[in-house]
Order: sequence, then structure tokens, then C-alpha cells
Amino acid sequence: MNGADSLIAGFVEAGVTVCFANPGTSEMHLVQAMDAKPEFRGILCLFEGVCTGAADGYARIAGKPAVTLLHLGPGLGNGIANLHNARRAGSPVINLVGNHTQAHEALDAPLTSDIETLAKNVSQWVHCDAQAKNLSEVGMQALAAAMTRSTGSKGQVATLIIPADACWNPAETVAKSIQPAPLPKMAADHVASVARALTSKSLILLDRDGLLPSARWAAARVASKVGCRVAMTAFPARVDSGPGYPEIEKMPYFPEAVMKSLVDVDHIVLAGAGEPVSFFAYPQTPSRLAPEACEIQVLAEAHFDVQDALEQLVTMIGAEDAVPRCYQRMAGDVPKGALSTRSVAAILAQRMPEGSILCGDSGGGAAVLEPAQRSTAHTWLNLTGGSIGQGGPAAIGAAVAAPGTQVFALLGDGASMYTIQALWTQARERLDVITIIFNNQRYGILETEYLRLGVNEIGDRAGALFDLNRPLIQFSDLAISLGVPGYRVSDCAAFDDALQAALERKGPTLIEAML
Amino acid sequence: MNGADSLIAGFVEAGVTVCFANPGTSEMHLVQAMDAKPEFRGILCLFEGVCTGAADGYARIAGKPAVTLLHLGPGLGNGIANLHNARRAGSPVINLVGNHTQAHEALDAPLTSDIETLAKNVSQWVHCDAQAKNLSEVGMQALAAAMTRSTGSKGQVATLIIPADACWNPAETVAKSIQPAPLPKMAADHVASVARALTSKSLILLDRDGLLPSARWAAARVASKVGCRVAMTAFPARVDSGPGYPEIEKMPYFPEAVMKSLVDVDHIVLAGAGEPVSFFAYPQTPSRLAPEACEIQVLAEAHFDVQDALEQLVTMIGAEDAVPRCYQRMAGDVPKGALSTRSVAAILAQRMPEGSILCGDSGGGAAVLEPAQRSTAHTWLNLTGGSIGQGGPAAIGAAVAAPGTQVFALLGDGASMYTIQALWTQARERLDVITIIFNNQRYGILETEYLRLGVNEIGDRAGALFDLNRPLIQFSDLAISLGVPGYRVSDCAAFDDALQAALERKGPTLIEAML
Repeated sequence: MNGADSLIAGFVEAGVTVCFANPGTSEMHLVQAMDAKPEFRGILCLFEGVCTGAADGYARIAGKPAVTLLHLGPGLGNGIANLHNARRAGSPVINLVGNHTQAHEALDAPLTSDIETLAKNVSQWVHCDAQAKNLSEVGMQALAAAMTRSTGSKGQVATLIIPADACWNPAETVAKSIQPAPLPKMAADHVASVARALTSKSLILLDRDGLLPSARWAAARVASKVGCRVAMTAFPARVDSGPGYPEIEKMPYFPEAVMKSLVDVDHIVLAGAGEPVSFFAYPQTPSRLAPEACEIQVLAEAHFDVQDALEQLVTMIGAEDAVPRCYQRMAGDVPKGALSTRSVAAILAQRMPEGSILCGDSGGGAAVLEPAQRSTAHTWLNLTGGSIGQGGPAAIGAAVAAPGTQVFALLGDGASMYTIQALWTQARERLDVITIIFNNQRYGILETEYLRLGVNEIGDRAGALFDLNRPLIQFSDLAISLGVPGYRVSDCAAFDDALQAALERKGPTLIEAML
Repeated sequence: MNGADSLIAGFVEAGVTVCFANPGTSEMHLVQAMDAKPEFRGILCLFEGVCTGAADGYARIAGKPAVTLLHLGPGLGNGIANLHNARRAGSPVINLVGNHTQAHEALDAPLTSDIETLAKNVSQWVHCDAQAKNLSEVGMQALAAAMTRSTGSKGQVATLIIPADACWNPAETVAKSIQPAPLPKMAADHVASVARALTSKSLILLDRDGLLPSARWAAARVASKVGCRVAMTAFPARVDSGPGYPEIEKMPYFPEAVMKSLVDVDHIVLAGAGEPVSFFAYPQTPSRLAPEACEIQVLAEAHFDVQDALEQLVTMIGAEDAVPRCYQRMAGDVPKGALSTRSVAAILAQRMPEGSILCGDSGGGAAVLEPAQRSTAHTWLNLTGGSIGQGGPAAIGAAVAAPGTQVFALLGDGASMYTIQALWTQARERLDVITIIFNNQRYGILETEYLRLGVNEIGDRAGALFDLNRPLIQFSDLAISLGVPGYRVSDCAAFDDALQAALERKGPTLIEAML
């Protein structure tokens, strides 16, 4: 047994059995160790951002980490953008990054770089000088770190940078996993202070565990009893919702809309959420969006037991029997005529199977949220960190974590192109992922943001940085070239036909909706 | 005039006029400033690794930096891998990375991350707190830093992280460029000590400016006079070569081959190069590859005037009239039959126009090097840092820097998929880039490296991390879907026909050579 064998064996014993991999020479001993462990599933991705996004999607569904296998600094670099999203999602992820031996690192060979510094951008835990004899133990520390909620936004990404000789030298023992500490509960007197402050002008803002179904029920009961509002943040990591779930608002994206939404609120209760802030800074609007006189009270931060705090609140205000309004299933018509974001969303909401997982990104996908509430129970994985190119990779991870479940990747044309390599892995692993490209042939959000600068027209040179129609990307053909059946549709009937064909087929499909 | 206007105006006045861009909301004022400056050419890339690789390719041909425009930490993250290559190439690159305002950063909105830490992995110069009134001046500092050789391997990447309000607030002046200091020359007595040590068992090892044509002539004259060897490192950034250039060896890749090559060498003279070290660390071979008794003498490090040092050496040993052997033009047959890496290389060497630029990557492309020496004068851009996915982006930059020159991107199938988005920008800008995919349906180098572990067979699970044929990527169709004409060929005649069609056409083409 060498260090690599001990590391992989430890992971398997601890239930970490999926590896999204793009290895290189410095990871060959890890590949050899994986080859000897059939329980450990290596899934090849053609680009490291697909590995990290898939690990994020996997974690959000499985509730435990997958491992990524990345090649030195550049491999980790390619994974940074989706690790940023994973960090913002609070997803447990373990990165295994191969490195030179320490002696070799000192010689500054071409692939040498300061991996530790790079890792710090996205990792709450970084380790870089393991030896073979303790590599398995350090792997269990990585797992424990990934399963531990950190304060603030540091996330749960653990990056284990492995010197090559820690893999190839002999190891003796396989370490046991470390039991993570339970989430600390909020003290009753603190919860009571929130209970006392609640009025009909309060808003309870949920994120992370505050959106677990039981936590959401608790918040809804409280809001129903008090007569106040309850909302989720704009981009929570995971939301299970649909008919039968309590109704909930969603914070808008643009700061003007958030401010308008909060104008009559004088008390915000944060349950796993941060205070409402603008996504970007703008010259004309503030960054903090709650009204100045509004009191902001933290019920429980994300690294505390948010669910328990909300349940304590229910008991304190006697809301056990409150009956919140729930989403009701409504039969919807399937729209006809030319395709629009709205009609794609309506058809998708009608046709998707119960329990579907929807992976959002930048682009039109968010339009599905509203009709889906009244059509079908579903799980929504949002683009948490604003780093576009998450949806396709996250769909891989979700499909691996929940075999037999229909997964959708809802992607803008621009967003999809950051990690288009995801399609190949979907085909290779025959994953039940239907990718919808909302193809409006532009970075639509940038056009909107640019016009917000106060200019009335987009000049040619600026426009050339937003438009995606010269040349027009043929996504259906692109999908086919990567092994995924592709359809290109521009009216509702054709979209509906393509969608139904995709739902009947095992494995992935891409539908390009021309808007 | 706002800060963004002053920054772009300063760059234009300093001759920095090309921007490889993938902007987001926090860069909209920079886009607006670019819109007002027709002399500043914005080139949209669909993925940031394409921007940074293009900037590297541009710098290697133009000898001055292009600017990249990247969106916060994730945008820079996506650019890291090719910035690593740029750093290893010593290419001057200026990254403009938009950031939140400092006040907004403190609120930890979703896209907030520690960009400065991230930038340090690849940048020898980082700046992050500019204000509008000094942004133009800081831009000129970035340019000066990019044009300044640093010690060791820190490279010439300058990363300017720009708070959004430094763009939108008013500015008054446009700063002037800073004249970079001339390269320091090596002292005559130092050069003389090298001259005295030269024998027929010496090897002069060239990299960076040691490979400038005049420096290479000087090294060849010295070697010819002394009767010793002269070689380049395995992956120098740029080599101009072909018929009429002095013959030169190339250090091999695998450590065993390097050691074999050096077995009779007792003195290595480094001219812009580092000592021979293994690319990766292996259990069975050393990392330092020169024979133990070999004396290693540094003639001039890369941040000194290497060319002058070599010319001093010529004078000291009286080699002015030495006549080194040069590559001779030889008529080659165009091979027939099934395609192989070798036959692709032979045909390409025969058909490429004088002065072509060849952008290498991992894969079969290096096979073109040998026949090209005796067929056609050319410029070779190597994969410098081992971070694959450089060739396609570098070809964009080279084609932008040298309009009218034929550029080739020589890519392995695996390597091409890291930055396949490059094709779209090649189509959009109608660049004369011919991409050759050496399609062997696998990560061939990893199979080789894996077998070097001492295993005789690749197991199914390990093999699944190396093979790329399930599904087979249809590169010709993929190219067409991104606006680039594509050919898929599997015999020599078809490859030759496709190549000649590509050479006659303006704009890009992709030829997928099935091996």
C-alpha cells in the first residue's frame, strides 16, 4: 500500500466514492490507486471547471462531498470559478491537487507555481505538505473540514495539495473518518428577542438551512401567525419547492427592485441569510438595500442550526397550528406560436417529471421558477456565486448523486460556453440531463447593465462585446459533436416535441430554444 | 473624462491597443470607454482562458502587451492556466480585472472574493486600490511592470484589479508611459570566465533572448569554433527557425532521454535558460539531470542582456568568422496512405507558407518541428508552462499581432478541449488560423506516463480516465458549429487537399486528422 492507496481507501470507507477527474502526470499514482478500488467512481471531465461544478452539484444533492482530481496550479486554476460558486453555496467539496515533490518544486520546473496561494481564494482549508505515512489521515481532515460549516462566506471547500512522493511512498494505515461536530444551536433568549420584535412589517429572509423544507415550514408558520412576509435570497444554493410547499417570495436581482420590495419593511430577520445587498456596486444606488430605519436581526447565521432556531421561534410565538398558504397545483395550457423565454418556461413546467432537479445559470432559466411552483415538485440549484458556467457541470453532479431523477440544465447561450465541455461527460456517463439553451444570441444581462449606465444606445464597439451572433453558435450541432443528441427549435410545438422525445430517451439531450 | 476613459487613453498613447475581453457588469464603464476609442480594439472571447492565452500569443509576436479584460475573481480564475504559460514564456501581459468598490467588497456580495491572492499565483505585479484620479498612472505602472524582466520565474504578468468607482469617478489627466530600463549587460570578466571554461565537452543551452536569431548565431559561432554542442530548452517561448538558421539541438522531454543526451557533457553554459531539470518528479529518476560532475555556468540569466553576453563570448574566443552548420532546404516527398502524426507533420512542413507561425500544445504537433527546419522559415510558439489548452488561444493572439501571416494551431484532441471556445473568436475576427487536431482519441501522454509507473497494462478504470473515444468527439462538426469550416480526414491525400483548401481561404479552418 502506498500513500495514494491509503488515501483512496480512507475515502471509500468514509463514504466518499465519487471523483470528478482531470488528472495529469503528477496524479498517476492516484489514478493507479483508483484503478484498484472499484467502489471509487472516477468520472472524466475534459476541463477542470466541469469537475468542480459537478462536485458542487453532487454535494448539493448528496449532502456529502465528491472529490475532484486536478493537475497542479493550472488545473486548480481552471476549477476556481466553479469552486467560487461552491463556496458561496456552502457545498462540501474536496479538491485533490497533485503537486511536485518538495525537492522538485525547488527546481522550478515549468509546471511549478504557488498552488497554496491559489487555493486560498476558494478554500476554507488548505494542506500542502502531507507525507505518505499520514496522507490518509490528512484526507480525513479534508473531509472533516468540508463537512464543517465555517463562519462568514469561507465555505466548505477543502483543498489537499499532494506532493507526488506522498502518493508513491509506502503507507501503513488507513485513517478513520472524523465525526463532525453538530451544528451549534441558538440560545433561547436570543430567539426570544427575535420573537418579541416580530410584527406585520417584519420580513423573514431565508437561505441555506433556512430553506430546508422543515425550516421553511417553520418560517411560513411564523409569518402566517404574525402576518409578516417571508422570502428567500436571490440565489440560494438549493430550494425544494412546488405544489404543497409554503409560498415564499424571492428577493429580486436589481437593487432598485430590492429597495422597492423592502420599502415598507422595518424589521428583517435573517435565518441562514445575509442582509440584502446589491449584487454589484453602482454609482446611482446604495450597496446596502434595506431601508435606513429598518432593524436587521440575525436569528441564526448559516453555520448555526438555523432549522432549530426557526422551530424555537414557532414554539415561542405559538405558531404550531398556523396554516400558511401553499402553492396549489394548477393545470396550465401549453403555449403555442413562436418561442419566448416565457413559453419555454411554461412548457417545461408542464412537462417536467415530479422531483426533477433544475440547475440554473445566467440566462433565461429563472423564468421556469414561477410556473414550476404550481406545476411540479422540484429541486432548484441556483447559480450561487455569479460565476457563470455552473449549470452544465452542476447537472452532471446532480445526475450522478440522484440516478433515475430527471435533471435539467437551464443555460443562457453565453453562460453555456464557459463549460460547454460538460456535454461530453453527460454523454460518456449516459446521464439523464436535458440541457435547454436559451439562445438569444447575446450576453443579454450585459446589454441591460450597460444601458443602466445612462447611455441610450449601445455603440458598435461596445455592442461587439455583447453580441453572440457573429458567428451564430449552432448549439444543437455542437451537442451532437460531443455525443449528445441535439435539437434546434424556434416554435412552441417543436420545443414541446423535442422535450418529450428527450424525456422518453435515457441519457442526455440538448435543446436549443431560439428566442 | 472618467477613470476608465483615462486608463484606455493612456494605453492607446503608449501603443497598447488590443484587448482580449470577456467583461461583466463591473467592467461596463471600461467597455464604455473602449466604445469611445476606435484605436483600441476589443476582441470578445467566450472564455477567459482564451483571452489570456491570446494575450500571451500576441505578446510573443508583437513584443508588447495586449490587455485582457476579466470579470472579478472567477474571470481571473478562468484565465490562470494560460497566464501560467505566459509567465513561463516571459510574455508581457496586462490583466484588467474589474472589482467591486471597496465599500461594496466589505459587504461580501456573491461575486466577492480575494482577487489579490488569486492574482499572486501568476503575476509579478499586482495593484488593487487605484482611484479614478490615478488610474491612468497606475495603468502605466502596469505597462512598465509588464515590460520589465523579473528575476527567476516570476514573469511579466501585471494584474491591475480595478475598483468599479475608480472607473466611474472623474479623472483629469492621462498619464505618460514610463520608459523601461535597458537590460543590464553581463560584465566582461564574467563572460571571460565562461570563455575560459569552454571545451568540446561543453553544451551551450539557450532560452528566451538566447534564441533571438542574432543570439542564436552568436551561440552557433562559439560552438562551431570550440567544437561543442548548442541546444535549446524543451519548450522555449518563441523560436524563429528553418532553412538558413544555424542548426540547434532541442532538449528532450523525458528525464531518461535528457540524461542520455548529457552523459558526455561536463560543462553546461546557460544563456537565458535554467539548468536541465525533469518536467515532473518520478520515483525512479533524479530531478536534476546534468551529470553529477558536470559544471554548470550561468552566462546570463533571462533578465540580463543574453544576446550581448553571447556576442561578447564570440569576440573573446575569436569566433566572428566561424561558420556554423545551418539547416538546408530539402525537397520532401508528400507522403501517401493512412495518416500518422509523422505524415501530418511531413505534409504540413511541405505546404506551409514562408514565415508561418506555429502554435504548439500537448499532442502530436511537435512532430512538425523536425521537418520544418529543412522546409520553410517559420516561428514556433511552444507550450511553455505545461498547462495544456494554450495553442488555440495563442494562435488568436499571433494572428492579431501579425495580420497577413499564416498561423497554425497544432493541438492534441485532449488539449484542444480546454479552450475549444477559441474557434469562435477565430471565426468572428476572420483570423488566418488553421487548426490541426491530432486526433488519437486519448490523452496519449497520460497513457505513456502511466505505463512508466511500471504497470504493464492499463486497467479499465484507469483507462477510462485516459481514453477520449466514448463518445468520439467530432471536431470537424464542432468547428462548424462555432463558425469555422471543418474537415475530418484519415488519409494523406485528403489531409493534403483539406490543407490546400484551407490555405487558399481567408479566415480560419480546422482539420481533424484521424490518427
